[in-house]
Amino acid sequence: MSAALDIARAFEAAWQGKDFDRARSYLAEDVVLDSPFGRETDAARVIEQYAAFTQAVTGPARELAAFGDGENALIMSDIPTVLAPHQVSAVHYTVRDGKITSETLVYDATEIRAQAAPTA
Amino acid sequence: MSAALDIARAFEAAWQGKDFDRARSYLAEDVVLDSPFGRETDAARVIEQYAAFTQAVTGPARELAAFGDGENALIMSDIPTVLAPHQVSAVHYTVRDGKITSETLVYDATEIRAQAAPTA
Repeated sequence: MSAALDIARAFEAAWQGKDFDRARSYLAEDVVLDSPFGRETDAARVIEQYAAFTQAVTGPARELAAFGDGENALIMSDIPTVLAPHQVSAVHYTVRDGKITSETLVYDATEIRAQAAPTA
Repeated sequence: MSAALDIARAFEAAWQGKDFDRARSYLAEDVVLDSPFGRETDAARVIEQYAAFTQAVTGPARELAAFGDGENALIMSDIPTVLAPHQVSAVHYTVRDGKITSETLVYDATEIRAQAAPTA
């Protein structure tokens, strides 16, 4: 078992369950999130991004693969959203002293950008 | 050590080194690739996609995280391309009898689609 993977899964379960206070408790205050929308370095704003995303989620996440070691976890998931019935994402977490200190999150943001773009 | 991860890394080293015959040797003939551009179920066409992608690659790939077990591997990489200095991608491989039988590949395809789209 991987302690880092346990923390990462607990974080994902918390935000997927819309328990954002609990989700935030797993993040270091100076967590660094790298995503298709750039870098975020504040735990509160990271949680805001997850909260916004959950409004688009239409069903339970499915874990496609998940691994971890002492300080790293890597999880790929399939999450149904209003824009994509199978939104695949992957996150690499680093965990120190029981807190997530960094996340590298990847997904195809094409549809999200198209929705966010002003119409011509 | 994970036999599946060894095969996945050997596949990645082969296509990154533009040795597409060698890369193809790691794929089952009926490999299933799911990517931001849909599903591909033919090894030759999967290799064509990698060959096309390598034309945009500007430097060596950097492995951000990699894990595996008997039949699964999960690798996240940062690959510099003409469109993105840090194109992050993640691939979940399943491996049977020494061959890659499926790949779920995720990356942000926004820029690639924008380049491919006809100009107005």
